[in-house]
Amino acid sequence: MTDFLSRLDGACAANQSLVCVGLDVDPDKMPIPDVADFNAAIVDATAGLVCCYKPNLAFYEALGIPGLKALEVTIAHIRQAAPQAIIIGDAKRGDIGNSGTAYAHAMFQVWDFDAVTVNAWGGRDTVEPFLTQPGRGVFVWCRGSNPGSSDLQDLSVSTPHGNMPQYQHLAREVKTWSAANNLGLVVGATVPDQLKAVRDICPNMPILIPGVGAQGGALESAVQQGAASNGRRAIINSSRGIIYASQGPNFAQAAGREAAKLRDAINTILDAEGKGWP
Amino acid sequence: MTDFLSRLDGACAANQSLVCVGLDVDPDKMPIPDVADFNAAIVDATAGLVCCYKPNLAFYEALGIPGLKALEVTIAHIRQAAPQAIIIGDAKRGDIGNSGTAYAHAMFQVWDFDAVTVNAWGGRDTVEPFLTQPGRGVFVWCRGSNPGSSDLQDLSVSTPHGNMPQYQHLAREVKTWSAANNLGLVVGATVPDQLKAVRDICPNMPILIPGVGAQGGALESAVQQGAASNGRRAIINSSRGIIYASQGPNFAQAAGREAAKLRDAINTILDAEGKGWP
Repeated sequence: MTDFLSRLDGACAANQSLVCVGLDVDPDKMPIPDVADFNAAIVDATAGLVCCYKPNLAFYEALGIPGLKALEVTIAHIRQAAPQAIIIGDAKRGDIGNSGTAYAHAMFQVWDFDAVTVNAWGGRDTVEPFLTQPGRGVFVWCRGSNPGSSDLQDLSVSTPHGNMPQYQHLAREVKTWSAANNLGLVVGATVPDQLKAVRDICPNMPILIPGVGAQGGALESAVQQGAASNGRRAIINSSRGIIYASQGPNFAQAAGREAAKLRDAINTILDAEGKGWP
Repeated sequence: MTDFLSRLDGACAANQSLVCVGLDVDPDKMPIPDVADFNAAIVDATAGLVCCYKPNLAFYEALGIPGLKALEVTIAHIRQAAPQAIIIGDAKRGDIGNSGTAYAHAMFQVWDFDAVTVNAWGGRDTVEPFLTQPGRGVFVWCRGSNPGSSDLQDLSVSTPHGNMPQYQHLAREVKTWSAANNLGLVVGATVPDQLKAVRDICPNMPILIPGVGAQGGALESAVQQGAASNGRRAIINSSRGIIYASQGPNFAQAAGREAAKLRDAINTILDAEGKGWP
């Protein structure tokens, strides 16, 4: 079984792309009403341009059971249309004991996600159930892209290694949890200093970076601070900026164009640093 | 519209009970295979004995879409069989911006839960979408009942009010977020000292207390430390200890017996402190 990190590296190399498309479906913004059809069109238009797709479960749950059925169809469609892509279930799950085990089962066995985002507030033992699945990845929510993330994540905590912001302590901890190349972190593009600090702590871990585009995070700093020294392991997510690029009948084409533009912009930044694709 | 706290107080007074039944369905432990039928039998046997039901979404999601359909049927059944009961969606949700708004919509509008558990790791702005729903409650996960909860929650953080464990800082913060009597906290029965500290910080806020029974938390300290000075506002959850009290055909009767036993044990502790029901 290939480990998760190798799968992720392979998905990036296949399209020479660090772009993740966030499939945040919203009937108020979608130019066609059917969620599964909308996603299929987006996936078909971007399959050769990206490394990952990231459905955020919140948007599917908000549509009730029909939304979850559309998610099921979407995952099956990605497997067909973009077989190399990593599908990240953005769910920020986390709970104790047998509840945590049930969430891990839901995300990996029921939904068949390749990776999942988790919330580690409950501690290491709430993350462990997600780490037992060979070849599947876990991105721990380390530093959010929202203003409120400073409320807890930036507080200075006292640790055996001295005082440091909580998110840095978490990054250090997560590093010690990684036994099978299956752990990563989530850090927002809107906070480049925090992104740099996390990359310094975890030189080789994959970092999922939301917040470019609609959320206003700067791409250049996200790539420069977020990528590992070899120019990889930064997964740059864009949701609304790609999938809602146009509300017209050409929406899928527009999404493909935006995904290509983002891929090329990232690769230009990598090239300028001598870390481009071979 | 009655505020959430009044609804919760009313549900407790109706049955003179602080017992919450956790509907953590598990096909390996259920004596009958149908999830909705199992829950209906448990609810029918306990409707006159408890104040709340708490389905943990992890267990329903682990069963896929059929599990979620069973949850839908279960919620409708509770509305019929125990119309006064508060239904808490134990989901530990939390995400930023429009994702958080979508989760709040899912929990309150789609599922129609009366209250929800949330994870505040992302800060105040990730909790706010849940606070805009008149009459619905939000329990912020403050201190878990699991060993790993000490990893982050017990760390000493530097705050404008001095250094304190993170969970205490969170309790102080949550207190300032409560505008409409709709906020509570989750603190485990397994950590009575932390429970006492939180109750001291928040004298009147409802505290949802998991961890008695199967998880080994002591009931007496949970009630003594967890209840407000008037002997209310502590919601004592038991899941496995009630719903899997028997694996035989009499499982519902056994669940009713255990729920009654827990209610009476709690009320005896309250009586001994002069805080019993009138």
